[in-house]
Amino acid sequence: MFTLDPIHVIYEFDPDMESVLAVPSGAVVKFSANDCFFQQVLKETDVVEELDPDQMNPATGPVYVEGAARGDLLKVEILDIDLDDSGLAAVIPGEGVLADEAKESIVRIMPVEEGKVHYKGLQIPIRPMVGVIGVAPGVRDGAIRTNTPWKHGGNLDTKDIGIGSTLYFDVNRDGALFALGDCHAVMGDGEVGITGLEIPAEVTVRLSVIKGKEKIGWPFLETEDAVMVIGSGYTVEEACQAALSPLVKALASHHEISFEEAYILASLVVDMRISQLVNPKKTARAVISKSYLTAEDFLETLQA
Amino acid sequence: MFTLDPIHVIYEFDPDMESVLAVPSGAVVKFSANDCFFQQVLKETDVVEELDPDQMNPATGPVYVEGAARGDLLKVEILDIDLDDSGLAAVIPGEGVLADEAKESIVRIMPVEEGKVHYKGLQIPIRPMVGVIGVAPGVRDGAIRTNTPWKHGGNLDTKDIGIGSTLYFDVNRDGALFALGDCHAVMGDGEVGITGLEIPAEVTVRLSVIKGKEKIGWPFLETEDAVMVIGSGYTVEEACQAALSPLVKALASHHEISFEEAYILASLVVDMRISQLVNPKKTARAVISKSYLTAEDFLETLQA
Repeated sequence: MFTLDPIHVIYEFDPDMESVLAVPSGAVVKFSANDCFFQQVLKETDVVEELDPDQMNPATGPVYVEGAARGDLLKVEILDIDLDDSGLAAVIPGEGVLADEAKESIVRIMPVEEGKVHYKGLQIPIRPMVGVIGVAPGVRDGAIRTNTPWKHGGNLDTKDIGIGSTLYFDVNRDGALFALGDCHAVMGDGEVGITGLEIPAEVTVRLSVIKGKEKIGWPFLETEDAVMVIGSGYTVEEACQAALSPLVKALASHHEISFEEAYILASLVVDMRISQLVNPKKTARAVISKSYLTAEDFLETLQA
Repeated sequence: MFTLDPIHVIYEFDPDMESVLAVPSGAVVKFSANDCFFQQVLKETDVVEELDPDQMNPATGPVYVEGAARGDLLKVEILDIDLDDSGLAAVIPGEGVLADEAKESIVRIMPVEEGKVHYKGLQIPIRPMVGVIGVAPGVRDGAIRTNTPWKHGGNLDTKDIGIGSTLYFDVNRDGALFALGDCHAVMGDGEVGITGLEIPAEVTVRLSVIKGKEKIGWPFLETEDAVMVIGSGYTVEEACQAALSPLVKALASHHEISFEEAYILASLVVDMRISQLVNPKKTARAVISKSYLTAEDFLETLQA
């Protein structure tokens, strides 16, 4: 197994970034991930607005996966997420879904013990997830800050990106150049208050190259019982359109029905879910049960 | 039990509409509901764009609930939804999330047998729901077409409004003036293609008045394991803000924590879910497990 220390961080997914580790396809890599503030918050009286803005949303990496080239997919199996024993959440006036109603900047630090987050007498079951995860964007997209989600991944803040799930990214650059960070112990769909329970973690993934596939266009995710495309845009509506379109095309191709017939099927069985509403672009996912389309079905429709 | 025939329909929720039936608080009423096209579509070669636009989205009612007055809540328990044995779905170019990609207007009629919708060799489990459901709006909102969702309910197209769920509406007018229609055998979150599986149905509800409560502002729904506020707006973001705000206030009040502390809790455990993306206003819901807030907890925070 390969390991990567949390000192190796990026703040942009850059087409021309230099890798800090090279691994063969199929390698298992354990990434030590910082929290989204690079552990700058030490106590509840710290003020998020006063933190160093140059140390926000670090992602550990990038890793060069040997053999990955433009026109391939990078398969990322999330094998484990081992959380630290304490996380934090914050509210910043002017931020989040209720930006105008939040008047006070606050930080709350919460212990994470025996699978539960402890807050105000409540015990919240953990659901570990990776917030920032992705590969080098294409040259046309240029460098993209780690706080932003897009076609290459980035700040997807999608709670289904957890233990046992598998992500697929279009490879845009040699070696794919994969990085991740910004883990959460738990987060609701929307991340409405602007943070999840932000926490350092060790994330173990297997990185594999799938050769010669048509581009998906957006990150594709498989969970235990569903598959989904994760789209982003300036509005939720744009994000939904981005996520839904590849899924309907795959349904049409796999079931050998017309686009319009697949669109009808999607209207009955696809759930459009909000991932996050608080980043520079919004993220949504088009989710369908494996009863109607498996990951294998989807990948088979991508003929290079 | 009271019954209401499907000939008694409205196409607007109007503050001054006249009721067709008066029932005491606690009455059980079976509504016969037309499909959203008033059964105008008879075969797959029918064209939706050629249907009579004055017969779209009929809602059966309105029912006057005795004792209901402004400042009360109307509690609507959905006891049963008995579907017809056939439903239909449609695609209209220029409509839905993939408006620009759908080139052909099509209708598909699907049998509903033994709890399954049959389509293209797939068996889709039914999940019966009520699309249009609500009460007379306030005078300030004026008459609102049944195709539109808003604070009074209307075309909420929320798949959690199914058998066993309970809705609460602010009463704006004497008698509440309740109506429902537009049932679906199954629909995905978003109703991305513009229809669910549209189907006539008999919907049995219990209508009860809860006296003297502060306004919720938006429809409130209890399901088996969760409660939610259902908000609408011109964008999904507006709908999310509308739905989330009353829930965070209730969390603060019930758990005796500050608004900001409740906002943090919401960011960890509230799911913002898309109901529909295709009506004149969009609808989203702020969903929270009963582990953190029950319907009783929520209602107790509404002190008149």
